[in-house]
Amino acid sequence: MTGNIHEECGVAGIYGLKSDNAASLVYYGLFALQHRGQESCGIAVAGNSGDGQSPESPEGDRQITCWKAMGHVGDVFDSKTLSGLKGGRAIGHVRYSTTGNSVAENAQPLVAYFSKGSLAVAHNGNLTNTSELRKELEDEGAIFRTTVDSEIISYLTARYASESESVEEAVTKVMGRIRGGYALLVLCPDRLIAVRDPYGLKPLVMGEAGGATVFASESCAIEAMGGSLIRDIKPGEIVTVSADGISSIQTEPGRFSKCVFEYIYFARPDSVMDGISVYESRIRAGRLLARQHPVEADIVTGVPESGIDAALGYAEESGIPYVKAFVKNSYVGRTFIKPSQDQREQAVKIKLNPISSAVKGKRVIMTDDSIVRGTTIGNIVRMLRAAGATEVHVRISSPPFLHPCCYGTDVPSCDLLIACHHSIPEICSMIGADSLGYLDVKSLPDMLGEDGKYFCDACFTGDYPDSFVPEG
Amino acid sequence: MTGNIHEECGVAGIYGLKSDNAASLVYYGLFALQHRGQESCGIAVAGNSGDGQSPESPEGDRQITCWKAMGHVGDVFDSKTLSGLKGGRAIGHVRYSTTGNSVAENAQPLVAYFSKGSLAVAHNGNLTNTSELRKELEDEGAIFRTTVDSEIISYLTARYASESESVEEAVTKVMGRIRGGYALLVLCPDRLIAVRDPYGLKPLVMGEAGGATVFASESCAIEAMGGSLIRDIKPGEIVTVSADGISSIQTEPGRFSKCVFEYIYFARPDSVMDGISVYESRIRAGRLLARQHPVEADIVTGVPESGIDAALGYAEESGIPYVKAFVKNSYVGRTFIKPSQDQREQAVKIKLNPISSAVKGKRVIMTDDSIVRGTTIGNIVRMLRAAGATEVHVRISSPPFLHPCCYGTDVPSCDLLIACHHSIPEICSMIGADSLGYLDVKSLPDMLGEDGKYFCDACFTGDYPDSFVPEG
Amino acid sequence: MTGNIHEECGVAGIYGLKSDNAASLVYYGLFALQHRGQESCGIAVAGNSGDGQSPESPEGDRQITCWKAMGHVGDVFDSKTLSGLKGGRAIGHVRYSTTGNSVAENAQPLVAYFSKGSLAVAHNGNLTNTSELRKELEDEGAIFRTTVDSEIISYLTARYASESESVEEAVTKVMGRIRGGYALLVLCPDRLIAVRDPYGLKPLVMGEAGGATVFASESCAIEAMGGSLIRDIKPGEIVTVSADGISSIQTEPGRFSKCVFEYIYFARPDSVMDGISVYESRIRAGRLLARQHPVEADIVTGVPESGIDAALGYAEESGIPYVKAFVKNSYVGRTFIKPSQDQREQAVKIKLNPISSAVKGKRVIMTDDSIVRGTTIGNIVRMLRAAGATEVHVRISSPPFLHPCCYGTDVPSCDLLIACHHSIPEICSMIGADSLGYLDVKSLPDMLGEDGKYFCDACFTGDYPDSFVPEG
Amino acid sequence: MTGNIHEECGVAGIYGLKSDNAASLVYYGLFALQHRGQESCGIAVAGNSGDGQSPESPEGDRQITCWKAMGHVGDVFDSKTLSGLKGGRAIGHVRYSTTGNSVAENAQPLVAYFSKGSLAVAHNGNLTNTSELRKELEDEGAIFRTTVDSEIISYLTARYASESESVEEAVTKVMGRIRGGYALLVLCPDRLIAVRDPYGLKPLVMGEAGGATVFASESCAIEAMGGSLIRDIKPGEIVTVSADGISSIQTEPGRFSKCVFEYIYFARPDSVMDGISVYESRIRAGRLLARQHPVEADIVTGVPESGIDAALGYAEESGIPYVKAFVKNSYVGRTFIKPSQDQREQAVKIKLNPISSAVKGKRVIMTDDSIVRGTTIGNIVRMLRAAGATEVHVRISSPPFLHPCCYGTDVPSCDLLIACHHSIPEICSMIGADSLGYLDVKSLPDMLGEDGKYFCDACFTGDYPDSFVPEG
Repeated sequence: MTGNIHEECGVAGIYGLKSDNAASLVYYGLFALQHRGQESCGIAVAGNSGDGQSPESPEGDRQITCWKAMGHVGDVFDSKTLSGLKGGRAIGHVRYSTTGNSVAENAQPLVAYFSKGSLAVAHNGNLTNTSELRKELEDEGAIFRTTVDSEIISYLTARYASESESVEEAVTKVMGRIRGGYALLVLCPDRLIAVRDPYGLKPLVMGEAGGATVFASESCAIEAMGGSLIRDIKPGEIVTVSADGISSIQTEPGRFSKCVFEYIYFARPDSVMDGISVYESRIRAGRLLARQHPVEADIVTGVPESGIDAALGYAEESGIPYVKAFVKNSYVGRTFIKPSQDQREQAVKIKLNPISSAVKGKRVIMTDDSIVRGTTIGNIVRMLRAAGATEVHVRISSPPFLHPCCYGTDVPSCDLLIACHHSIPEICSMIGADSLGYLDVKSLPDMLGEDGKYFCDACFTGDYPDSFVPEG
Repeated sequence: MTGNIHEECGVAGIYGLKSDNAASLVYYGLFALQHRGQESCGIAVAGNSGDGQSPESPEGDRQITCWKAMGHVGDVFDSKTLSGLKGGRAIGHVRYSTTGNSVAENAQPLVAYFSKGSLAVAHNGNLTNTSELRKELEDEGAIFRTTVDSEIISYLTARYASESESVEEAVTKVMGRIRGGYALLVLCPDRLIAVRDPYGLKPLVMGEAGGATVFASESCAIEAMGGSLIRDIKPGEIVTVSADGISSIQTEPGRFSKCVFEYIYFARPDSVMDGISVYESRIRAGRLLARQHPVEADIVTGVPESGIDAALGYAEESGIPYVKAFVKNSYVGRTFIKPSQDQREQAVKIKLNPISSAVKGKRVIMTDDSIVRGTTIGNIVRMLRAAGATEVHVRISSPPFLHPCCYGTDVPSCDLLIACHHSIPEICSMIGADSLGYLDVKSLPDMLGEDGKYFCDACFTGDYPDSFVPEG
Repeated sequence: MTGNIHEECGVAGIYGLKSDNAASLVYYGLFALQHRGQESCGIAVAGNSGDGQSPESPEGDRQITCWKAMGHVGDVFDSKTLSGLKGGRAIGHVRYSTTGNSVAENAQPLVAYFSKGSLAVAHNGNLTNTSELRKELEDEGAIFRTTVDSEIISYLTARYASESESVEEAVTKVMGRIRGGYALLVLCPDRLIAVRDPYGLKPLVMGEAGGATVFASESCAIEAMGGSLIRDIKPGEIVTVSADGISSIQTEPGRFSKCVFEYIYFARPDSVMDGISVYESRIRAGRLLARQHPVEADIVTGVPESGIDAALGYAEESGIPYVKAFVKNSYVGRTFIKPSQDQREQAVKIKLNPISSAVKGKRVIMTDDSIVRGTTIGNIVRMLRAAGATEVHVRISSPPFLHPCCYGTDVPSCDLLIACHHSIPEICSMIGADSLGYLDVKSLPDMLGEDGKYFCDACFTGDYPDSFVPEG
Repeated sequence: MTGNIHEECGVAGIYGLKSDNAASLVYYGLFALQHRGQESCGIAVAGNSGDGQSPESPEGDRQITCWKAMGHVGDVFDSKTLSGLKGGRAIGHVRYSTTGNSVAENAQPLVAYFSKGSLAVAHNGNLTNTSELRKELEDEGAIFRTTVDSEIISYLTARYASESESVEEAVTKVMGRIRGGYALLVLCPDRLIAVRDPYGLKPLVMGEAGGATVFASESCAIEAMGGSLIRDIKPGEIVTVSADGISSIQTEPGRFSKCVFEYIYFARPDSVMDGISVYESRIRAGRLLARQHPVEADIVTGVPESGIDAALGYAEESGIPYVKAFVKNSYVGRTFIKPSQDQREQAVKIKLNPISSAVKGKRVIMTDDSIVRGTTIGNIVRMLRAAGATEVHVRISSPPFLHPCCYGTDVPSCDLLIACHHSIPEICSMIGADSLGYLDVKSLPDMLGEDGKYFCDACFTGDYPDSFVPEG
């Protein structure tokens, strides 16, 4: 229900499928990653056994074919486009829609043609030295088609590839130049390379499906491809799959700083990343909240979908029964005509209606994953009261948002973050709750089930792993 | 997850809105009823204060304007069509798609023009004397445009209206002729009439919204219209709202026989119908299952969405913790390209993936609302085991399906119902479960929280309230 | 370029195809009739050899399946819907869009179910006794779904069919009741009936295609079905095709009054109707204009498309060379965003641009089929002058419009017809022409190549063949 | 009716509009150029007075906003996208669809971001040194996103611009590198540059509209923008429009070699390019044909649309009357379901039906612009005979196609060109004509109205202006 924070991308890839259907498996993988990006999507394939019917199959050995467009996976691909994407290796990408830049040109994968051939790049993350790199490259004569940083990665990879013995070597050089968080899949006509930034800010997992090697932002995509998780790509690691098998290069890693917000909100609960079950960490967040912010109440509930797991953990720890208090209307989509100003109350009820009989006369503990501006949760608290709840105690399974993310998460700037300008009691009063408790930032290791800090919590603490100081 | 059983319709209506936006409120109501029918939908309005811009506004005082088409509410209506439907009173309808009859002509409301004016009918339910009525009427010269029974109701209403003092009188006569289950909304240029069959087989509630009187199949629609529930229409009752206020005619009721399956599966959990909270009844079903079919296990879970409430009740009663074991992918829609035969396993996983960390090494109790053919639940049991569950105990929050419904529910014929041909142990083995327990048919009153039998459970017992003997 | 006058419908039908593809042939026929109606279209089939996959195939022997919707033929039918319409006999319909009534419910064919079975009706034309018939039928208990007169025909046909020995007998009775212009195709499960009104106001031709018997509003549709024209249905004739072969009933005809405006504008030039080539009659109109309104000039041209044939005739007769003076942009369609008020001039030029080099410094004779309001032709005259024409002499291949049509042509009411309120010199000055000549109403027989008056020219003379006096 | 030969692009641009609606004018221009490319289209704007609502408006002074997609102009742009393209200068592009490369990424204009800013390029034409340039640039480190040569031009322009004093200087350098035919529009934030290749192979005209300076591939687009033609861009000329007014650089021109096929087929008849009216040249082609290939006949007709003008010229010269012999169905579009193999005959008739009454019993001379494979014209000849023509004499208003075009016209390779493998008598027999005459290649200057050879006729003669020897 966070509503205002978005992951910006998801990637999936496969190498070594015996059949020409690699695109089809990536298609299923992208469905499982759709929550990570709904603006545009695309699939690039290579290793086409070849009938020339593909949408874009350039001449010679530059065999990378790509189809991408604005829209959801289910809209962009139909059986015709999918069957035109023939090949035994493929990468795919889903991208999130930020306003102002919703143009087809920013869709990925990005294909690059250069002196030694071609490659396609799918990128999840954000660079922190974009403008300095861009300036430097442009001064050297680089020409870009877009203003997105993924093009810089694609450019550098192709440029170094044209000067290097191997694409792996090129990728190593690229990693020496770019800073920030990234999970990359690089498809070459003869190989697939998976790369994770030195801090491990962005997740990237490896698995096996249909006898082939697969990669994805989350393990749930591997399962959607019919496969199973093998391991995580390590921070700073470059994994290559080719006819020679799987090989790995380990570049100098930084302090392991996986994104804690993946566990709090972004990732699907059925994913396991860096050895930690997303579902389990959310349950633990709920348990910790129960210990840190106990309150006498009749029921515990969660805001669907992202608040429910923490509610289950809270209920378990506190012994207060978990109750489903809301029905979410899954039919409300893009074509929904919003009510006029005086019908706003209805709009909320249409999307998310409380179950009166579950909350009437009850003291309610309600969990959610985070508070950004406070408007949505305020509406939900009001609805619960209108439905008969006598008390509403809000518990947030993350610490207060105080700092922007510079690694590819769309956290609003400070002036829009309620916690930047208001104390917790103020927020409690603004959202109309009887009490408000955030997860203690010190308990994040407990939430993840770790005893040290191997994660990035810069959005809560301002402690950016690469010592980057954002301007915003 | 039942997948094979569908409600066939939902209705919503409003009378007495001061503004011309009645259609807009009904639109929100239909969104809340979309689960009751996804084939087609429509809205008819009257009381147009009049600018002649409506899609269909026939001459003179025959002022009923209607827009309907194949598709979901969000697709059929856009701001242009909606703003063309001007008027202070309106009825709307959502219809379910059965194969072979998915044509625009069957969409409702059905408008009828006759000697005394015009009216529009929205109907949820099914008549049991369709063919005899149809024959009789055709013998008398009636001509029909469709083969759906709603047209018979529309025809009879208009015919009697042309012979009667009032439409209410006509409706009373219609009720004397038709048998079966029905909830009707009849919109006349100057009034709105709500009718429920003498057995109360189909739900119909009345409420207040924006100073106007509203009706709907479920109370959740009233809430979506920004209103609140007042009461249920009684079996055999005819409620009229007009400039003269609200009046009621009580025709001879039958044995009160509300549909028990509305509580088990059809209705939205946030609805309250005939004084019973759907959510509460599902929780009670879970509790009863725990008492009737206890088993030693580590966790209780439910198949999303319809099996979750019973799981919560089972957990509460048994003391075994409730766990969320599945992630449902809400992006998988109509455009999803199904995998080829050898990728079937993936298709299931893409739509519904188990959370391994939640079930691994666990003895699992899994609830669902019903078993029709057994295929889907068999797949889910297999997935749970593959995800590491050591035992899977299936609990069904309804008795076994044994008989077709003749009141508007799309229960397959007996030869497709697994329980018609197999004993419970056989089914248990076919779906691969360690144990299987159905809700005892005798405990249905307990589930509803009533001490007598005031409901229809013919699909489980063959005890049809109007002594109807179906052929199928 | 007339722009303001529209035919309202076109019909096509086939009986006796050996294969199940009757719908496919009718589909091609409707493409050839698309100029007669662009609002909605539909096809009904019978004689399904039967696999139950059709969109609407009711039970038993009531085997009529229908698919219809708003839109052009190419949009309404795709290969899936078309292949679902299986059967060896079929009728189809295209309907024109009038504002205010553009709803799917008015699409044809209209299917009717009645005591003796079912039938489908496709109707081109307009009744002049609609309201009296409607009142009478409603008083007898008839209930209608729409306000279009085609439903009255469908209703009467079904009603009489239920009381008659045969549908042919029923159709004969219907003809005794309805007045006005009509071409009807009635599809029964076992036969196809083609009917033309007693005055022959609406065209209807019969032909042969693929071994089957076909009917259509125009012969061009028969050619599009791959067939050839046999003859016209005679005024008042009922032709039946069934397993027993082709039979004909001749009811009492009126004065033969085929619509002269079909030849002037509506029909496709490659059609031959009632023995008269549309193309030839337009060439003759041009020749007559040259004789009636000669003028010294350098070139003759016509407004595309409907004015070109008369220009060719004028050129031939006058000896002044024909020149193509305009390019019409066929890409300008429904999605074209019209320029704002101050860009109006461009809008005309985008759709129809003069060829300067063809007209520069020339005295131009320009033919068009008719003038309704005078706005469009005024714009075109201005464009010609701006392109360098030194004189523009307008010649209209029809007499001035003075009276509304009550037989199914959308002529605006008198207050919108420029000729009702202005003399020819006034009109000439209003449209900015150097001279203006209309075809003499007395020469219409010459235009048709007949020596008597066997046609309806009521829109020019007010002489309505059935002595009907329109109100408008 | 040529069917197999396509122009590949069209361009339009505007500089200096007082309002922000430059995109709107370019939109109308593109409608007029739609015949030059139907695959994709796009518009880029600059000089946004600025509200940040544009689809893609990158930061800072890099103010170029672009919207492009697959589809026709009417489909790609709606009022929302168009109103998002704010600015007083703009360029637009339409692109033709060749199979295999129909991807959004190839749509133009191509935007480039580089060290000194940004620019957008719209290109009509084809380079002959693409692979050598591409190799050289890639060896120097260039990275491309597509395999189309327009990207090479965009790349070079941006690269030289980053090293030059001005974009004009950069363009001059680009012209020194690229070979082949091109008409370019280069939009910079502060200027618009129009460039034509040294041979003048591709047309490019300049005009005035709404007080602004406009450029377009054809003059018809200037008229659609509401403006008027000023002059042609000269071979090798670079015209710049900026705040400083209009300036021109004349680079070294080659032998003037405008494409003769623009006059024969590509261009719209209402266009005037390089001082020659397209319509007039087609009329002259007809006259020349009449002199070169006279035959005794009753009527002259032309295959719509492209064969009609030559027919008028032939008729004029020969004194044999011109007759319209075909009706083209403008409703047959992309969604048309093609008949099955055994219904092929119908498919042709649906698109193009002969007017029997015009040709029956007649000896027909039929003109068309060219013959590529001969299949289509063979079908048309057969149709004419079936419609009653006693003789069919085919006259082609161009010489036989013998060589591929390497400047941007999609002439099939030699093995598909009927004239490469068959003598004229053989072709005559293959298409079933009574006689066949092509325009004499020596009379092309007469057709154009010139006394020397200032045009490219390489597709007929193999005489490539830049001495290029194509491989194909």
